[in-house]
Amino acid sequence: MITPETLWKDVAALREKAPLVHNITNLVVMNVTANALLALGASPIMAHEPAEFDDLLGIASALVLNIGTLDAPWIASMEKAATLARERHLPLVIDPVGAGASRLRTETALALIRAGEPAIVRANPSELLALAGASGATKGVDSSHRPEEAREAARGLAQAFGCVVVASGETDFVTDGSRDWHIGGGSALMPRITGMGCTSTALVAAFAAVAAPLEAAIAGMAVMKVAAEMAAAKAAGPGTLQAHFLDALYQLSAEDFSCRLKLVRE
Amino acid sequence: MITPETLWKDVAALREKAPLVHNITNLVVMNVTANALLALGASPIMAHEPAEFDDLLGIASALVLNIGTLDAPWIASMEKAATLARERHLPLVIDPVGAGASRLRTETALALIRAGEPAIVRANPSELLALAGASGATKGVDSSHRPEEAREAARGLAQAFGCVVVASGETDFVTDGSRDWHIGGGSALMPRITGMGCTSTALVAAFAAVAAPLEAAIAGMAVMKVAAEMAAAKAAGPGTLQAHFLDALYQLSAEDFSCRLKLVRE
Amino acid sequence: MITPETLWKDVAALREKAPLVHNITNLVVMNVTANALLALGASPIMAHEPAEFDDLLGIASALVLNIGTLDAPWIASMEKAATLARERHLPLVIDPVGAGASRLRTETALALIRAGEPAIVRANPSELLALAGASGATKGVDSSHRPEEAREAARGLAQAFGCVVVASGETDFVTDGSRDWHIGGGSALMPRITGMGCTSTALVAAFAAVAAPLEAAIAGMAVMKVAAEMAAAKAAGPGTLQAHFLDALYQLSAEDFSCRLKLVRE
Repeated sequence: MITPETLWKDVAALREKAPLVHNITNLVVMNVTANALLALGASPIMAHEPAEFDDLLGIASALVLNIGTLDAPWIASMEKAATLARERHLPLVIDPVGAGASRLRTETALALIRAGEPAIVRANPSELLALAGASGATKGVDSSHRPEEAREAARGLAQAFGCVVVASGETDFVTDGSRDWHIGGGSALMPRITGMGCTSTALVAAFAAVAAPLEAAIAGMAVMKVAAEMAAAKAAGPGTLQAHFLDALYQLSAEDFSCRLKLVRE
Repeated sequence: MITPETLWKDVAALREKAPLVHNITNLVVMNVTANALLALGASPIMAHEPAEFDDLLGIASALVLNIGTLDAPWIASMEKAATLARERHLPLVIDPVGAGASRLRTETALALIRAGEPAIVRANPSELLALAGASGATKGVDSSHRPEEAREAARGLAQAFGCVVVASGETDFVTDGSRDWHIGGGSALMPRITGMGCTSTALVAAFAAVAAPLEAAIAGMAVMKVAAEMAAAKAAGPGTLQAHFLDALYQLSAEDFSCRLKLVRE
Repeated sequence: MITPETLWKDVAALREKAPLVHNITNLVVMNVTANALLALGASPIMAHEPAEFDDLLGIASALVLNIGTLDAPWIASMEKAATLARERHLPLVIDPVGAGASRLRTETALALIRAGEPAIVRANPSELLALAGASGATKGVDSSHRPEEAREAARGLAQAFGCVVVASGETDFVTDGSRDWHIGGGSALMPRITGMGCTSTALVAAFAAVAAPLEAAIAGMAVMKVAAEMAAAKAAGPGTLQAHFLDALYQLSAEDFSCRLKLVRE
């Protein structure tokens, strides 16, 4: 059973254990995702040189692969890390940034999913529709992108790859292919800050170090929504929101969490 | 005719169309320029892998090339993108960061200008003097760097390369080689924040997606000056200025713009 | 004699001379370290292409090498820069981020120290213990990491490599192998912001451009502690702390410095 109480226990466990999260992520968001992990209570390392993966994956509790600024050497690095994570049963979370915007991104994301067998894939609806279309997990991609379509794509991908899939949006949708959850709240300013999606991926990975994939995905997205809502109450725009968001991740109490959480099981 | 009214219409057009701006930019400023583009209402993508340029330049409305942390693979990537942008008539804005500080930077900037035939070059006076000296567009570079010298260099480069040139400073200078504009205002703290010049280049590129080059250059620099002045009224130093600056880009109203704009045609 | 008065004169000298600090640093912290250098009054350049080192090191007054996101091409670049800095007697500060977390990091840090003969090494206790163990400067590494052990490692490294060593922590420890200094103060939130250690390395390097290594190391760490304490008085968490920290570096007065400095010679 996933309840607000079990999710808050995950937050407490994360803060107590301070899991090391290894990130191979994009150049735009490295700083903000590292800060979000630290503010919440996890410990980040950003490292992309394959020669040190054997050492680093031996001390890490979760791995994030994010293709936001992919290039040939970093794709090779991520493929190596994906394979090692699978072999070591390390929780892997993949963020297929920009899948659908270029064939390279769609194909790289699918190759990493196949090589790494991730616990969780976190993406926006367009990216999920592109992956579902390219992998044959749905019949096709309708350009209108109705929420229900992204949900079908998410369910299809979860079933095809045996993982949890998160479709983030105004309301986040989390599915393991059979059970579906919705998480509301947050702030309308979130899409005006770069890397909020990537940050949610990193937080989901931190929770995957202390909880099972479905619970970890819900916990990570729930913490994002609650902290963004707390920050929005103090912010005048996206610049001040970002500072208050990190403060909120740090300050977040059981009472904040239970009062503001908007979680619905379908 | 370029007037405060036409410039504000450009802001409105940018917010309505949310143009996708493709950036190959430096590692220091990627996050802040992406946030500034989002705050103003544009949509950023940072991508440097040539294998996806064909797809990405097909959906982008403008391209930024910024050599701030250049290296051999990124120079090759920027040259490829410059050529593709020229072939596709995509508005290209070049920021020759550090031209004059190393021969590599001066030569790379000139090679990109020749390959890409940019709509706009945005630089500081030292960089323009270095480019003008190396390209033969001026007689030489006087180390004293009087404002008038940078203006001559800017006019010379604009004529030599058939583009609009922006010399940013306490008062920005914008020229197409025959018509000159001056934009005042802003905040004395701007040079104490890394990437404010690079941010202005990115905003100018976003406007180049909705307006002709001369108007776009003026609109981008004007929005920078107005937003920085709004932010400075709330800031105690460069750290809080940066957060308030992003808020100001987001909040910017027609009244803010018309009250604060300091635009003079020579 | 190093006193609060001589340290404040270093701050004044730094602000007057605005030394150019060349950084080859990690992808996570480039933006924040550049902003900290600017806020304090120095001038940063981030550049890693060996083809421009001859030009850039000719105009720089100090060099930072930080291995936080090392990979094969950047290791080669840092080795080249280390050798050039030694040949030119340019003050070099090395930050061995993650030494001990992977053999690659430990070995790369030691190779850079041997090639560059740095004026100063700035690290956390774990990193210093790893370097001391691997270089034979101490008998071994006790996993308990008591402060006194890191101090012995720091002294051993300072003697072995003829440099000043900083062990940062709740109280910073600075030694040249014979004389030891302690710097207290700061904020308990500092470890919750990524790149605060890397920022202190960059500030130490800026001071190395205007003062001898031991004094520069103490000045850089002292300014960090004082500015963090000033910022913590206004901050609600790590997000707002970071903005106020940059403001404090910019505002820092002789009175702030003398009132808050907690400096003890052993």
